Amino acid sequence: MTRRLSVLLLPAEIDAVTTDDRVLAVLVDVLRSTSVIPAALAAGAAALIPAAGVEAWARRDAIPGALLGGERDGRLPEGFDLGNSPSEYTPDRVGGRVVVFSSSNGVPALLRLRGAHRVLTAAFVNEGAVGEALLGGSEDVVLVAAGKDRRPALEDVALCGSLTARLLAAASTFVPDDGAEMALAIWNRWMHDVRGLLATSAHGAWLVAQGWSADLEFCAQRDLFGIVPVLESNRIVPLRTT
Amino acid sequence: MTRRLSVLLLPAEIDAVTTDDRVLAVLVDVLRSTSVIPAALAAGAAALIPAAGVEAWARRDAIPGALLGGERDGRLPEGFDLGNSPSEYTPDRVGGRVVVFSSSNGVPALLRLRGAHRVLTAAFVNEGAVGEALLGGSEDVVLVAAGKDRRPALEDVALCGSLTARLLAAASTFVPDDGAEMALAIWNRWMHDVRGLLATSAHGAWLVAQGWSADLEFCAQRDLFGIVPVLESNRIVPLRTT
Repeated sequence: MTRRLSVLLLPAEIDAVTTDDRVLAVLVDVLRSTSVIPAALAAGAAALIPAAGVEAWARRDAIPGALLGGERDGRLPEGFDLGNSPSEYTPDRVGGRVVVFSSSNGVPALLRLRGAHRVLTAAFVNEGAVGEALLGGSEDVVLVAAGKDRRPALEDVALCGSLTARLLAAASTFVPDDGAEMALAIWNRWMHDVRGLLATSAHGAWLVAQGWSADLEFCAQRDLFGIVPVLESNRIVPLRTT
Repeated sequence: MTRRLSVLLLPAEIDAVTTDDRVLAVLVDVLRSTSVIPAALAAGAAALIPAAGVEAWARRDAIPGALLGGERDGRLPEGFDLGNSPSEYTPDRVGGRVVVFSSSNGVPALLRLRGAHRVLTAAFVNEGAVGEALLGGSEDVVLVAAGKDRRPALEDVALCGSLTARLLAAASTFVPDDGAEMALAIWNRWMHDVRGLLATSAHGAWLVAQGWSADLEFCAQRDLFGIVPVLESNRIVPLRTT
């Protein structure tokens, strides 16, 4: 029994690929949404509720005690309680709280994957745990690089390549598509220098210019968390391992 | 004076990138449209006229003596005089003739680039000549991988990587974007095995299954032609070198 392993270099490809209940989908938005998500869960957030566009504020206001976090075009929008830096998601701020989470690229792509059997999120900080979770299933796998402003992001595709390498090394049942072959080649170029990868990417260079160098250091850490975030009933929570 | 070097992994990115008169744009559709185009010009075709969708037949009928060539979903549509195999574009068939050329992925993407200062096409069979033409300009460069069915194609991105490598090696003025960095890593993986690259790609495997192995061999040849096809007044003709 083979399992198709597809890497989407851009969310624009979602419409061209099957993402139904025969698929495990993984959203990758390394800088910084899918690095923030496991950090927030590790800090004790009760759940993150993804919300796109203008509905974000209303969602927060409808849930007693909820916080609103994330970004618009990389910046803190008016009325948000938290930005898009993992450093803000401390136990003090988010412990026991619901966080409505909204971002320009990652969240809209995540919501487009809701038809899949399971929707996970991955970044360097938790890729090992996500890889294990993918190996445990029997569905086809679709890894989606969120990119930025409708263009692909080097760091997101590279992480898809790292996950591809893990899956191909662990199981011969996976059949990679062109996107997976490309992601793998990109990962092989950068696998020994994740910090350099993030600094080379356009988004990483922009974050450094904005004074967020510490976030790059954070997001470059591999397997800091054993948490696998999963979207369940429109809430992102840690996957329960059985 | 720096020149931006952008690689678009999919035509979907065209709307997110500037392609105005400050840009040299290059369309890449290795299997097989942009391999056919220089082959047809080398065989003496007077010009190729790109036509998308249903207008292809009418364009042919409006030009006395014109032929209609290309494909729809990789197959020969009814009423076409020539398919999408370079082997069909012989001096006997196309010498001195105008060929209306229509394809599913390459031609629509080509037409979307018309606002650029100059629009060229490239494949392995003529990449050296195209690289030289790009070095001769001062504009920003946008390389567009045509892909297939709204998904990226390994072979198109790899060729963009090969062109990227040529440009970066020849001139330090080029500033690569994330797409160019990715294409470069993919090219580095395959640079010593273009035949294997084409056989690995989904489109290449499909062509082999359809009996078109000889076309893969043809399209894997590097620098067979010194022709640089350029779109001028909606006709694809050889670029005149001054």
